[in-house]
Amino acid sequence: MAAMAQNVVPPRGMRDFLPAQKRQRERVLQTIREAFSDHGFSEIETPVMEDAARLHAGLGGDNEKLAFAVMRRGLGPDDLRTAENPLDLADLGLRFDLTVPLARFIATNRGSLPPVFRSIQIAPVWRAERPQKGRYRQFIQCDIDISGEAGIVAELELLTATGDALRRLGLTDAFIRVNDRRLLFAVLDAASVPAEQQERALITVDKLDKIGDDGVVAELTESGLDGERVMGIIRALAAGQVPDDIDESALAAIRDLLDADCGVRLEFDPSLVRGMGYYTGAIFEIAHPELSYSIGGGGRYDGMIGRFSGTDVPAAGISFGFERLVDLVDIAGDGTETVGLVVDKKVPAQELVATKRSLVESGRKVLVANRARNVQSVLEQLSALGATHFAFVRPGDSADALEIKPLD
Amino acid sequence: MAAMAQNVVPPRGMRDFLPAQKRQRERVLQTIREAFSDHGFSEIETPVMEDAARLHAGLGGDNEKLAFAVMRRGLGPDDLRTAENPLDLADLGLRFDLTVPLARFIATNRGSLPPVFRSIQIAPVWRAERPQKGRYRQFIQCDIDISGEAGIVAELELLTATGDALRRLGLTDAFIRVNDRRLLFAVLDAASVPAEQQERALITVDKLDKIGDDGVVAELTESGLDGERVMGIIRALAAGQVPDDIDESALAAIRDLLDADCGVRLEFDPSLVRGMGYYTGAIFEIAHPELSYSIGGGGRYDGMIGRFSGTDVPAAGISFGFERLVDLVDIAGDGTETVGLVVDKKVPAQELVATKRSLVESGRKVLVANRARNVQSVLEQLSALGATHFAFVRPGDSADALEIKPLD
Repeated sequence: MAAMAQNVVPPRGMRDFLPAQKRQRERVLQTIREAFSDHGFSEIETPVMEDAARLHAGLGGDNEKLAFAVMRRGLGPDDLRTAENPLDLADLGLRFDLTVPLARFIATNRGSLPPVFRSIQIAPVWRAERPQKGRYRQFIQCDIDISGEAGIVAELELLTATGDALRRLGLTDAFIRVNDRRLLFAVLDAASVPAEQQERALITVDKLDKIGDDGVVAELTESGLDGERVMGIIRALAAGQVPDDIDESALAAIRDLLDADCGVRLEFDPSLVRGMGYYTGAIFEIAHPELSYSIGGGGRYDGMIGRFSGTDVPAAGISFGFERLVDLVDIAGDGTETVGLVVDKKVPAQELVATKRSLVESGRKVLVANRARNVQSVLEQLSALGATHFAFVRPGDSADALEIKPLD
Repeated sequence: MAAMAQNVVPPRGMRDFLPAQKRQRERVLQTIREAFSDHGFSEIETPVMEDAARLHAGLGGDNEKLAFAVMRRGLGPDDLRTAENPLDLADLGLRFDLTVPLARFIATNRGSLPPVFRSIQIAPVWRAERPQKGRYRQFIQCDIDISGEAGIVAELELLTATGDALRRLGLTDAFIRVNDRRLLFAVLDAASVPAEQQERALITVDKLDKIGDDGVVAELTESGLDGERVMGIIRALAAGQVPDDIDESALAAIRDLLDADCGVRLEFDPSLVRGMGYYTGAIFEIAHPELSYSIGGGGRYDGMIGRFSGTDVPAAGISFGFERLVDLVDIAGDGTETVGLVVDKKVPAQELVATKRSLVESGRKVLVANRARNVQSVLEQLSALGATHFAFVRPGDSADALEIKPLD
């Protein structure tokens, strides 16, 4: 039995959360949840599993390959021999994002939902990626989406709620890069990139951060496209100019966005692409001057939500990169006095329980630790559990008699 | 594509939660979480998956058979031919309870945890049971556990926290049936049931609710045991007598429990067994006079938590039957004024967003719905989303100009 102790760890790429970590995570999530909820979004929940066929319907892009597959129940040895492919043995899978489940949820429940539906989903997703620093196989996504609204009011509501959430998290310097897929396609049209090569060209432009301006030009040129022209137009747009061959109407949507006051700084970035193929209009990326990576993003993705219902449903959404945010922000506790009791082992059980009850009834939180020779280490344990105050409890001490002191 | 719409449902036995349901569930969970937390328990989290070998180590009883198995990644057709058993293809599984993960968590993290650790786990578990009314394949468990404490103070702290949670849920008539496995074994000893038949005898006594006193006597007698004697002793204990052949010492623990004031009514039930085999001392079952089923239970299970670390760790816990509670209780909202805006379609997007922001900044929650011919149905939608008030928004209306009225 002792041999088992060698390797008692969570599954690869997945994490346990100790009390202090869990408390921090819940505070940040609660802050985000409240901001979204105050702005008219309603939290929903779907099961962690979806039918395998639905997860692999092509809405998830490359993430589909990373799905954890759940085996059919009641399989026997014969099923192994007749299956041609391991996935034939799986009927369910763990979701790899919250967008496929949302599309399914709206198709399932549309009779019970308002025509324009603003949803919050704060929930874990699973991807069997090669584990590396900062990348996990189970992680939380925080998504808000508006389905059923084709107008720009959807984008403005999403940006306003996002701005307020960032503010409440103390990320007041955060800003949002905005662009529009329709503008990107107008740029590619102006540079004579044929329609069938435009998606691939966008994948190259998306690498700008990594390979730089010259790298993008080179890669486009290698593909037989006019890379210099593509980047020339993008550079001009970034400098506030409108090249002759870009129609003003292609800029109308982005201008409307930039003109609005959403309580958060918006920055037009004509080279912003966002990886996922399903965006159809405005696209967003949440940025912070002190961070080299984005802390969220989203955009309009008309045509996707309706895939499972067969009805066209316009939609837009933003996803917060919670795992990238959680360690950046410092959210204070709710101010409840949390008293760590350091209890002498001679205190009778019933007496201790009466003291705890009495302190809880007075509006405090109570933590308990047994007194040990190293009192300092006991106080540190209590602090890690969230204690703001402490008191020693000896036999015969009633709650009123305790000397409660701040813990620093 | 339209054909898919026929069958767009969550996986069998699993549920979507619409906004009103999700809100109710979160309120009840938050009430339970706060009660437990106030009484010194700390929330932790483990991944939803554990190694398959760990899930099937014999700690989960019959539930092990109900685990959803997760396939190894990167399997090819060859793996199917060489596998002897479908489970050879699975390396992970979804947890079927929170006790196996807790045992693993404590083994993994014991260097970072206090010697006596009071944990809260509020999280979903999965069991591939035959779906039926009130039984789901994904459901929430709410567990508190104390590990590292062998004394009765652990039981008293668990009962006190449970009592307070029940009170905060408004279940003031709830009470807790208590018994002790050691007393049950003393009863079986007194009735000359051989040690090797005692576990099976307890399974029969556990059926008392279903098959009645006579049924239990008959089944024990059929097994060649003195059923009349077993039930005679239990009846005497229930009537407050101590039969000659039951030693007072076997009753000492239960008397200590019953003498304590945990803020919740305790009722000695000498026939209480609790299904799971791993209990070693006190056992509990949360009951309510108006309900025919229990709404939670637990007990002491020394020897189990230590299974993965190889060290003996005494432990006791109580699990709330959240899915059985959630529809019984009525938790009020937090009192935040939630204004449903009924918006004329001529209101410019930017104007609406400014109004929303202004109302949120004044401390309100805001919901939005488009004005439709049937205003009553729009108000009902807003109410389902949690609106307590409503206001009509016309073009040019600023937030200050809105006439906000209660929604009833």
